[in-house]
Amino acid sequence: MAPIRTQWTRLIRFVAAETGNVHLGEPVEPKLDVGMAFQLRQPIKAFEILGSVSDLGSQVTKNVLTVKELLAPLARHEVGGIVRCLGLNYADHAAEAKLQKPSVPVIFYKPPTSLIGPGSLVTVPRFAQPVEEHIPDYEVELVIVIGKAAKNVSEAEALDYVLGYTGANDVSFRKHQMSAGGGQWSFSKSFDNTNPLGPCIVAAHAIPDPQHLPLKTVVNGQTVQNGNTADQIFNVKQTIAYLSQGTTLLPGSLILTGTPAGVGFVKKPPLYLKGGDYMTTYVGGGVGTLANMVVEEDAPGKAKL
Amino acid sequence: MAPIRTQWTRLIRFVAAETGNVHLGEPVEPKLDVGMAFQLRQPIKAFEILGSVSDLGSQVTKNVLTVKELLAPLARHEVGGIVRCLGLNYADHAAEAKLQKPSVPVIFYKPPTSLIGPGSLVTVPRFAQPVEEHIPDYEVELVIVIGKAAKNVSEAEALDYVLGYTGANDVSFRKHQMSAGGGQWSFSKSFDNTNPLGPCIVAAHAIPDPQHLPLKTVVNGQTVQNGNTADQIFNVKQTIAYLSQGTTLLPGSLILTGTPAGVGFVKKPPLYLKGGDYMTTYVGGGVGTLANMVVEEDAPGKAKL
Repeated sequence: MAPIRTQWTRLIRFVAAETGNVHLGEPVEPKLDVGMAFQLRQPIKAFEILGSVSDLGSQVTKNVLTVKELLAPLARHEVGGIVRCLGLNYADHAAEAKLQKPSVPVIFYKPPTSLIGPGSLVTVPRFAQPVEEHIPDYEVELVIVIGKAAKNVSEAEALDYVLGYTGANDVSFRKHQMSAGGGQWSFSKSFDNTNPLGPCIVAAHAIPDPQHLPLKTVVNGQTVQNGNTADQIFNVKQTIAYLSQGTTLLPGSLILTGTPAGVGFVKKPPLYLKGGDYMTTYVGGGVGTLANMVVEEDAPGKAKL
Repeated sequence: MAPIRTQWTRLIRFVAAETGNVHLGEPVEPKLDVGMAFQLRQPIKAFEILGSVSDLGSQVTKNVLTVKELLAPLARHEVGGIVRCLGLNYADHAAEAKLQKPSVPVIFYKPPTSLIGPGSLVTVPRFAQPVEEHIPDYEVELVIVIGKAAKNVSEAEALDYVLGYTGANDVSFRKHQMSAGGGQWSFSKSFDNTNPLGPCIVAAHAIPDPQHLPLKTVVNGQTVQNGNTADQIFNVKQTIAYLSQGTTLLPGSLILTGTPAGVGFVKKPPLYLKGGDYMTTYVGGGVGTLANMVVEEDAPGKAKL
């Protein structure tokens, strides 16, 4: 085995102004935070990539396209079924949540219907309103994107299965998470259009060590999370090795690796997301910023979606 | 809204002796337990169905095919991403597990890679060996198959979204389920090739009331579970309504509705599944029997898979 070596370094998925169609591309400016540029309506140019996200032989062409709409880097049908997530994977976050530091990874899943792209609306379902009771909450996370089918892999070889890294905002509904029967978390993290993904996938070869990436969340201009993947309890290698035991991680599979301290529900008073809130989550290493507005679905007296 | 009315009453998916290809079909004998017949190597004939499982307009033809290999009624890519499951949904099972009767559904998810068909081998991964420590366990369950995208549906209209019903054996690994960090169940119920599905989908119009279906499990000739969906804590209508809150249940989505009393890990001494065990799970109403042998993956001194 050897690390995956893609021709692209950073991959985005977008609707091109020139064609009106969905394309993959490599941003022309290698340092540009495409998520922030998209939010600021700055022009983004990308070299067209021919192939698919999971096609390890995808070709970067010289054809330059203009980003009209930036999308999540994988479509919902490309993520291999479920989205895997770690809970309580930063010691400072476990401590602030007053939960024990786990001895093995805490794992829950989400359906692809929860995923949205950069700039899309994070939707608080009717079911999770009023927000002051249900406490919708942000969680910035580093996301592993699997590139080759992985089963029973060792920690030593785990990184050879990584296509690249992206970012996510694992928006969580704390009332359901904490009080739903049996303490299972999956449902409370699964609502439609609640999990921003992106903006770039940075190729594994460009991030040889994923344990030194800054993570940051800003809500309405206030920095609320400011962490680093160095503080993960289970690092990327350990996470892949653990999750692949007895289980095939299909190409395109996403693993959200947990969030650092600073979430809203533990603050006094609790900070909860509400309609009109504007939040950004940032992952370093070239991944960039997800900027998303919060809306409350069909809320009485509020605009219908 | 009105109930879904398919042309077929019972749907199977199979490799045909005549063509060597995968087909859908309606068993010619309306009362035949196709799962048991397949296990006993009895001939099974089926009228070919043209279309797909989720195509509500699929046509039953007069073309008769012979079943060479019986498959799960949906392929892994047809189940809408994740498989949803209820835990502790029978009061007698919650009591035997010494867990509180839940006040809202206990929900966990599985990836499609866990699904196998009638007659396939249930695989105990290396990770969950030795079996006397990890306690692999059977769980017979009624499965709801969703036919139309369902979101925020009421209990009154919930059954209008049901394509039909099938069966499953939610094989569970109790050590991981009970002791893995944070008490999340999804991972311990997710291993490759551990969840038999089928054998038939019985159309919703043929089971107008799904709350009177017998459920039974036999391991090595001994009846170990003998229940009825009448004893569900959350019935089918309530389950669909709850799960659809804020969440789109895509066509083809599966909902495993929990298991009645009689599971192995609570017995004294515990009954655990081991390589060579032969188990059948049966769901009434025309769904029929899943018969599956257990194998231990790469077990020392045992045959390699």
